[in-house]
Amino acid sequence: MIKKVLIANRGEIAVQTIRALHELDLQAVAVYSTADRDSLFVELADQAVCIGSGLPQDSYLNMGAVLDAAVLTGADAIFPGYGFLAENSEFAELCQDYGIKFIGPSAHVIELMGNKANAKATMQHLGVPTIPGSDGFVASLDQAQQVAARIGYPVMLKAAAGGGGKGIRQVNNQAELATSFTETKRESQLSYGDDRLYLEKDLSDAKHIEMQAIADQHGHVVYFPERDCSLQRNHQKIIEESPCLQLSDQERATMGAVVTRAMKGINYENTGTFEFLMDRDHQFYFMEMNTRLQVEHTITEEVAGVELIKAMIQVADGENLPFQQADCGVHGYALECRINAEAPARNFQPCAGKITALHFPVGTYGVRIDAGVEAGSVISPFYDSMIAKIIVHMPTKTQAVRKLIRVLQEFRIDGVETNRQFLLDLLHDQHFQTGDFNNLYIENVFLKDWMKQHGAK
Amino acid sequence: MIKKVLIANRGEIAVQTIRALHELDLQAVAVYSTADRDSLFVELADQAVCIGSGLPQDSYLNMGAVLDAAVLTGADAIFPGYGFLAENSEFAELCQDYGIKFIGPSAHVIELMGNKANAKATMQHLGVPTIPGSDGFVASLDQAQQVAARIGYPVMLKAAAGGGGKGIRQVNNQAELATSFTETKRESQLSYGDDRLYLEKDLSDAKHIEMQAIADQHGHVVYFPERDCSLQRNHQKIIEESPCLQLSDQERATMGAVVTRAMKGINYENTGTFEFLMDRDHQFYFMEMNTRLQVEHTITEEVAGVELIKAMIQVADGENLPFQQADCGVHGYALECRINAEAPARNFQPCAGKITALHFPVGTYGVRIDAGVEAGSVISPFYDSMIAKIIVHMPTKTQAVRKLIRVLQEFRIDGVETNRQFLLDLLHDQHFQTGDFNNLYIENVFLKDWMKQHGAK
Repeated sequence: MIKKVLIANRGEIAVQTIRALHELDLQAVAVYSTADRDSLFVELADQAVCIGSGLPQDSYLNMGAVLDAAVLTGADAIFPGYGFLAENSEFAELCQDYGIKFIGPSAHVIELMGNKANAKATMQHLGVPTIPGSDGFVASLDQAQQVAARIGYPVMLKAAAGGGGKGIRQVNNQAELATSFTETKRESQLSYGDDRLYLEKDLSDAKHIEMQAIADQHGHVVYFPERDCSLQRNHQKIIEESPCLQLSDQERATMGAVVTRAMKGINYENTGTFEFLMDRDHQFYFMEMNTRLQVEHTITEEVAGVELIKAMIQVADGENLPFQQADCGVHGYALECRINAEAPARNFQPCAGKITALHFPVGTYGVRIDAGVEAGSVISPFYDSMIAKIIVHMPTKTQAVRKLIRVLQEFRIDGVETNRQFLLDLLHDQHFQTGDFNNLYIENVFLKDWMKQHGAK
Repeated sequence: MIKKVLIANRGEIAVQTIRALHELDLQAVAVYSTADRDSLFVELADQAVCIGSGLPQDSYLNMGAVLDAAVLTGADAIFPGYGFLAENSEFAELCQDYGIKFIGPSAHVIELMGNKANAKATMQHLGVPTIPGSDGFVASLDQAQQVAARIGYPVMLKAAAGGGGKGIRQVNNQAELATSFTETKRESQLSYGDDRLYLEKDLSDAKHIEMQAIADQHGHVVYFPERDCSLQRNHQKIIEESPCLQLSDQERATMGAVVTRAMKGINYENTGTFEFLMDRDHQFYFMEMNTRLQVEHTITEEVAGVELIKAMIQVADGENLPFQQADCGVHGYALECRINAEAPARNFQPCAGKITALHFPVGTYGVRIDAGVEAGSVISPFYDSMIAKIIVHMPTKTQAVRKLIRVLQEFRIDGVETNRQFLLDLLHDQHFQTGDFNNLYIENVFLKDWMKQHGAK
């Protein structure tokens, strides 16, 4: 029986986890760095242990220090949250060696899903659609043409050694492929000394759709309504919504069946999220699996009417899932935005400092603010700049957007800059409001316009 | 078309109304007393007019000053909230004379329901059950016995001139009635110079159950799930819940049909609440009608999934109700407690002062805090001591109670005393948790025990 849980994390997620533990009548142990000593999560925990200095590698990433704190305080489980050690299979294994329950999947599954090639192969084996492409490298133009004909144009021709947008070329038809194949091969050889190429279906016009699921130790699996997390910048999500209003109930059920089968196929325990790319035809393709809770689990809680941190602790403790698939349908529409301490106009530069005054517009129907800070809190330069999440849950998207705009207009924080105005501008955007955006929309369209108006000269 | 609304109120309800107006893209005008000049609601309003000094009669009850402010700012409607002018038919009529829409029922209906005798007669006429008793006064013992036999023992024998618990006697059978009739008549003559008596069914062991409804100008009426507001002290509600878990769906529908018929029968416009006494057999009897929004409308919003302030403004503006009866069923369970600036141990003496620090435990699923204060706010001795409402909405009462306890434990306010600990003790009470309480439970049972432990010596 779990009685005391150490939270190997900080900030907002540590605060919410302490609350969940208290509501389950369990003890909460915080670990913290010297930079976090006056933080809200340290104050709310039943016990708190300082495990090192501000740099993550000296504290929150220091597995020995975290485990020592667990032993010292007699914690019988560790909640990893997101970031830091949450997807570190070595840490999960060490917990097991110490006889401490890691609240998440097994070390084996974390490792399997952590390796992109193995994860893709596993999912293919379990019948999860993956991004179509060549099986390994294409040796000749002839072979490339065969693959392209099979998966359909446009395709992406990619250099094995490329990355970061380099060594990638979009190819629209067979004629283009002939030219591109020769050119990309030559360039790649010149740039990287490696001319191997592979082909993938072009999914640059796709949405980032993800579906979270949870499994207990007794073979029960429940999936939740999908989230549309396409609005990203630099791989950081900005605004998340659930459900994706373009998806039909039937499409949702299909995706759910795929996810459930995959969860069972890898004997998954606890919660995880399948990230998909979904094209204009609503075909979806596996990108990767997050073997942990995600920041945006809040909108799933609202739409499905469940509490996920509690459920994670309960299934880790050997209990049955506290809800069934039939309980977890779509109830209304939820929207989350992340308040970051950053200066969007200065290329989203993170801002550290002390919060001298804070007004959270709490109250009224449908508003939830999950925060890790209060007036007087210090935003440290060592960590992620996210300081609060504002979640609205309303019957329709139109109502939710209107409410979130009002809440953001009322929201006030003094002492550090935030992305409040950037979020407001995005909420007013027509493409956002109609759902007409893909996962490149922010970087390729919205942000370019926005920077013209607001960017530092 | 309503474009600008003046809020003839202050504090928490003024704050929530401003938010509703903004979400409807309407302008909000605040009126305030000098005591409230630094209040949150004044800060959030689009315009604010000082209408007098701290004493209510010099400002919030000063009809001329409120109407002058409306004319001055060009407001085309007035939202009265609760308390102050909310049930003042003269004010509603003056608004009409000024050509300003009063957001509430007509002056005629306010007046009709404001007179208890007329209200009871009207309800009887519309087939709403009222407390059974003699039709006027009982002239003789013989007549008293006939009435008592008809309505059933125990009965209450009441002196026409009595009040405040005096001149009232509980009578359990026919033999007791003979003695009590003579004695009460004599005592009443001696005390008040008036020996007229009447009889009513004894409903001292009853719950305070109320049902809110709303009607638009087009004949549509919707009722909402009932609220159990039995936990009162000195006629002030302490904790409210919805639904009343003792009621079946069938009983709820029956009450709803009665309420709907009554709303239509008096051509009611906008929202109002029917307060009933409900006995152990779930028979319910009309006590009175509140022709306004109530403090505890929040739990109805959560359980029914609607926004009531917005709906009130919309129907006042001639729109159709934004929801239908079928949308307003029971979704989970909601609980509200009122945070008052008061000292329960010193007979609930109100506490004025400045809030030096404040921690609202916002965040996590199912928590809502509607407040009118923030850090730095001054609690004035002139007004109601209620400063915030904490509402939890969960699938079950057990979950809701556990969550509210956690929230109250985390809640912190410095600078003024509050009833936080009293609420926590009540939430832990077995009678509260099982729903086994009537509307005298707090005063006759819980409070007596509590004062023994906590009361000032």
